[in-house]
Amino acid sequence: MFSTRLTPMRLSKSPDIELKPDESVDAFMEGRLRLIQSKGGYRFSIDAVFLAEFVSAKPGEVVVDLGTGCGIIALLLLQRRSIRYAVGLEIQRDLADQARRNVLLNGAEGRLGVVLGDIRRPPLAPGRADVVVCNPPYRQKASGRINPDPQRALARHERRVSLDDILGAASKLLRAKGRLAVIYPAARLTDLLVRMRGFDLEPKRLRVVHPDTALEAKRVLVEANRGGRPGMKILPPLVDQGDYSIIAKSLT
Amino acid sequence: MFSTRLTPMRLSKSPDIELKPDESVDAFMEGRLRLIQSKGGYRFSIDAVFLAEFVSAKPGEVVVDLGTGCGIIALLLLQRRSIRYAVGLEIQRDLADQARRNVLLNGAEGRLGVVLGDIRRPPLAPGRADVVVCNPPYRQKASGRINPDPQRALARHERRVSLDDILGAASKLLRAKGRLAVIYPAARLTDLLVRMRGFDLEPKRLRVVHPDTALEAKRVLVEANRGGRPGMKILPPLVDQGDYSIIAKSLT
Repeated sequence: MFSTRLTPMRLSKSPDIELKPDESVDAFMEGRLRLIQSKGGYRFSIDAVFLAEFVSAKPGEVVVDLGTGCGIIALLLLQRRSIRYAVGLEIQRDLADQARRNVLLNGAEGRLGVVLGDIRRPPLAPGRADVVVCNPPYRQKASGRINPDPQRALARHERRVSLDDILGAASKLLRAKGRLAVIYPAARLTDLLVRMRGFDLEPKRLRVVHPDTALEAKRVLVEANRGGRPGMKILPPLVDQGDYSIIAKSLT
Repeated sequence: MFSTRLTPMRLSKSPDIELKPDESVDAFMEGRLRLIQSKGGYRFSIDAVFLAEFVSAKPGEVVVDLGTGCGIIALLLLQRRSIRYAVGLEIQRDLADQARRNVLLNGAEGRLGVVLGDIRRPPLAPGRADVVVCNPPYRQKASGRINPDPQRALARHERRVSLDDILGAASKLLRAKGRLAVIYPAARLTDLLVRMRGFDLEPKRLRVVHPDTALEAKRVLVEANRGGRPGMKILPPLVDQGDYSIIAKSLT
């Protein structure tokens, strides 16, 4: 939880926006970005910040964020890349509601639309997005318990998003030559590149995230072009030292 | 040509081993490794040293080096990893002859066999190698001229080894769970991983080679297991600063 490392301001409850008992409001970027997040449940991680930094979203573009959570990536792109419009797709009703309140809290009405829906059947027009981003839930949530009911556990498991679900959605939503950027476990790099190509999403940019220059990677950032030609650019390694400086640099 | 950077000793011509007019003998590792190389033609590059450092060859194992050139990788593995036996396959008669003289020069008779042959039809027993290594000729040789005769140029082009040729040979020569290690252009990482999996060679270890920590990668080192299960380990980045220190460190 790096909001505590950032020692953010705790803002007083906004008069217009409901804050639930288990939620906090944290401020980043000298207050230009404010986020309602659950105190004990889902909170955004540095991966979201890395992905927002990595993706080649340009001014005026339309971005879809698959599994937007509290909306952090879309809000960062609106603030830092001057994109025209973002859509945050979220399957969990409480998170979608939280993201909608974050839109209001950051004055992003008309620039960030939050849509409740399943990425396997995205309720969005196909072929329209310039960019799709996804920071998929490949880790168990910190608050997640193993459900003692096998049927419910299975249902939850089946509800979790697969790599092919992400790639299928991106392939459907992107315009020709549109880009998909994801952050994914380093251990699954081959799966990611092989499956991307299977969906006609050609990997073009890779950045490997190491906890330290002398340690194995934990994550990879990959951007693919829909219908692109083969040819990978491997960017300089990104070292996540888990300290204040890199986070401050990323969020200021 | 980093032999000049190493300022190697020029050895006097050995009485037993013929040295051709266009060849030099360079010494590395305090004289424990001596190499006959062409003065102006093919000379080994730092890529060969990186690959020999990277591959997980273990004491007692049998290694096949596809396109062995002057034999550098096989000789390094014999010296530094205590492998049992190496076979160097080389299609060019003059290079195979040079490699055979390097075997004699380094007293590696009975431990390194040089075989003249095409990796598309390797004249070697299948399923016997613990490890296959390949530093393919993906760059034009420094001495290479464009052949003005289109037919000859085409013939030369067709003779050049393709990725599938390498993977096909490795797949044929390796025992079950045997390993293939290659160094390859970073731009072709996706091709490499996709095609490896296509040959049932599962990529297990990746090391990205950067000219500088702040620059894009030029090369990737990848090791795959024949019939292995998915799961990639991305090692710390390797920085090729092109200076004496890294070469000296690698060759001492």
